[in-house]
Amino acid sequence: MSKTGYEPTERTVPSRSRDRISYDQDLVHSILDEAYVCHLGFVRGGKPIVLPTLYGRIGERLYVHASTGSGQARSADPGLEVCLTVTHVDGLVLARSAFHHSLNYRSVVVLGTAHRVTDPEELHDALNALVDQVVPGRSQDSRPANAKELAATAVLRLDLTEVSAKVRTGGPNDDPADLGLPHWTGVVPLSTVYGSPIPAETLAPDVALPDYLTAL
Amino acid sequence: MSKTGYEPTERTVPSRSRDRISYDQDLVHSILDEAYVCHLGFVRGGKPIVLPTLYGRIGERLYVHASTGSGQARSADPGLEVCLTVTHVDGLVLARSAFHHSLNYRSVVVLGTAHRVTDPEELHDALNALVDQVVPGRSQDSRPANAKELAATAVLRLDLTEVSAKVRTGGPNDDPADLGLPHWTGVVPLSTVYGSPIPAETLAPDVALPDYLTAL
Repeated sequence: MSKTGYEPTERTVPSRSRDRISYDQDLVHSILDEAYVCHLGFVRGGKPIVLPTLYGRIGERLYVHASTGSGQARSADPGLEVCLTVTHVDGLVLARSAFHHSLNYRSVVVLGTAHRVTDPEELHDALNALVDQVVPGRSQDSRPANAKELAATAVLRLDLTEVSAKVRTGGPNDDPADLGLPHWTGVVPLSTVYGSPIPAETLAPDVALPDYLTAL
Repeated sequence: MSKTGYEPTERTVPSRSRDRISYDQDLVHSILDEAYVCHLGFVRGGKPIVLPTLYGRIGERLYVHASTGSGQARSADPGLEVCLTVTHVDGLVLARSAFHHSLNYRSVVVLGTAHRVTDPEELHDALNALVDQVVPGRSQDSRPANAKELAATAVLRLDLTEVSAKVRTGGPNDDPADLGLPHWTGVVPLSTVYGSPIPAETLAPDVALPDYLTAL
């Protein structure tokens, strides 16, 4: 891996749409940091399983949440082959032809072997990263995990080595022969917005909304 | 499968959080119909691959888009074992303890064997469903695929038989011992919003925005 990008591998060079692929480190990080769930794929009994999963990033390491009782955690003791994918849908692309309909999106695919985190200090940092993925800074404004909770939580680590990003932006790619067709064509942008925070019923009235939430 | 729900199987009964699982057909359909991409998992060389993929639904059949040149399409000729997962993130759940941080979400996991669609009529309907997943009704307001495009498009079919939904709603589940802690606690709702449609540069000025887009 260079300072600015990931080395392409046989598995991260796509067979098509090569103009949309990127190995840029900053782009990969930004896509990963903006999402709340990844889709974690692994193989069980020879068949694929894909589950939405909480995760967090520290530098070139991703940390994925699992329960100690789950199949992923048990399988990860010797190392679990995974594919971790994160996708943002940024727009609906309406072409004049059905064939050229598409989405604008940004996605990251991370391939590799996930290992269970056992070092207490790394586990502590990883759990903070998982909380900070939900709201940056939140780990410093909540009670840290106690011994019982640590024992009930498995965290898997996946290093960012075999990584690619894929991005589609812009308008529809209509065929020249279709330009005269009467159908509306263009892009409908999509974005994620935050609603007003809803305090828990048990929240004492003197606890103010923290700055990191008003900033959202 | 009953009229209202899917039969649980060994693979769709979770080892934990059983209170969040559902096999309700209407719930599954609503989660599937609201999303724009699924995350499609399959096994290649013994290892998992998860790719964001366009899809559409007709009744109890899902149709997944693939290129004829892609590995998925080639593998699907005899039948490809897949896991198709769709997730909506509805809120950030901030508990007083790091451990109880979570997300509100709705997800569907579909397991099964995907087969390449070869029947011309089914392929036609499936392509319409893929376009209508982007914008309902749009397939009737665009040029249908021609022979060359049909030859370049592979569609895989996955029947809704081994299916489960998982839903988390509501506020944080703080431990009673934590209720006196000074941290703000509650939920930050998330939603997806549509921006103003951006016409393609090539759009003739006399083409009005169609009703199905103003309705968004």
